[in-house]
Amino acid sequence: MAQGKLDPDSVPDDGLTTRQRRNLPITAVHTGTGKGKSTAAFGMALRGWNQGFSIGVFQFVKSAKWKVGEEEVFRRLGSLHTETGEGGPVEWHKMGSGWSWSRKAGTEEDHAADAAEGWAEIRRRLAAETHDLYVLDEFTYPLKWGWVDVDEVVRVLRERPGKQHVVITGRDAPQALVDAADLVTEMSLVAHPMQAGRKGQRGIEW
Amino acid sequence: MAQGKLDPDSVPDDGLTTRQRRNLPITAVHTGTGKGKSTAAFGMALRGWNQGFSIGVFQFVKSAKWKVGEEEVFRRLGSLHTETGEGGPVEWHKMGSGWSWSRKAGTEEDHAADAAEGWAEIRRRLAAETHDLYVLDEFTYPLKWGWVDVDEVVRVLRERPGKQHVVITGRDAPQALVDAADLVTEMSLVAHPMQAGRKGQRGIEW
Repeated sequence: MAQGKLDPDSVPDDGLTTRQRRNLPITAVHTGTGKGKSTAAFGMALRGWNQGFSIGVFQFVKSAKWKVGEEEVFRRLGSLHTETGEGGPVEWHKMGSGWSWSRKAGTEEDHAADAAEGWAEIRRRLAAETHDLYVLDEFTYPLKWGWVDVDEVVRVLRERPGKQHVVITGRDAPQALVDAADLVTEMSLVAHPMQAGRKGQRGIEW
Repeated sequence: MAQGKLDPDSVPDDGLTTRQRRNLPITAVHTGTGKGKSTAAFGMALRGWNQGFSIGVFQFVKSAKWKVGEEEVFRRLGSLHTETGEGGPVEWHKMGSGWSWSRKAGTEEDHAADAAEGWAEIRRRLAAETHDLYVLDEFTYPLKWGWVDVDEVVRVLRERPGKQHVVITGRDAPQALVDAADLVTEMSLVAHPMQAGRKGQRGIEW
């Protein structure tokens, strides 16, 4: 059967019309040891912003030194939406030492509790249908370390109401999460300048 | 030897200081059959824009139906730079049926000539140090089809003056290009909603 590039490979026997199926929310996972996992997730957020999506970014990182470039641009795009109505609203939260919505200061030792609190907030927002697109950046690590329960995450994602897209990034995505995702991309490192004694640089790495 | 996460794996014996090496321009290739190749490249451009880089995007695609979301946002960011001085300037060119700088209309049959003309313009801009970051989107296809000579591309990239970063995307990157790149990431498809009879949708695919 001849198919166009964008045609589905097959039509599943799930009782849904193409339109219903098309409008299902996407769960995407970007994993692997290569670069581009977060960058591609933020690229998806850029596209969503342009369509007027409400964007929620949650960075499960200890240090917020990296990826400040994206944060600055998305904060600017969020302001642009407030000022001119272009695109959609943007919220950008990072764990760092405690989430911005949390009053407690957080310490170096609180990462497990911070991660659990971040997930609890995301679960509340999913129930409230707060955003159209959620980026859970480096969320595979709290899953891997057992700070957040994978089975609960999978269940909450499966049962989430409405049409909320979720993109999860990070190495070593748990198999249960991969199995539950609609779109899983593995980024593999083929060559990297750091292997040739070169360090990260402005505009490329941050 | 204990190393921090961001330390280079080894220091090459190339006569360069760490600072000199750090400031070398990056040639990056995003290849493989998975998603995220272009999206991650545009994410890098976003980061570069935020650092004030002059961004030049060249899309070697026949149809410009896809990725209009990114184009709209980057055109908006380019305007923002003109209006407020924030970020850097942006030029976004696509082959479509003829490049924007070309006076001739172009026909369906002109793709090989159009691709060669696109590359000739990029070569001129590299010689003139026009941009800080070039995104050559889906440029592997004209290379694969022999419309643009791989060896010439590799030579021009190797000999380019100043500090101009180049990111090339597309499946089946030729080996000579991979060998010449500093950073090669392979995106592999693990699972995709299209395999389950779902078509692309607004905000996710475009």
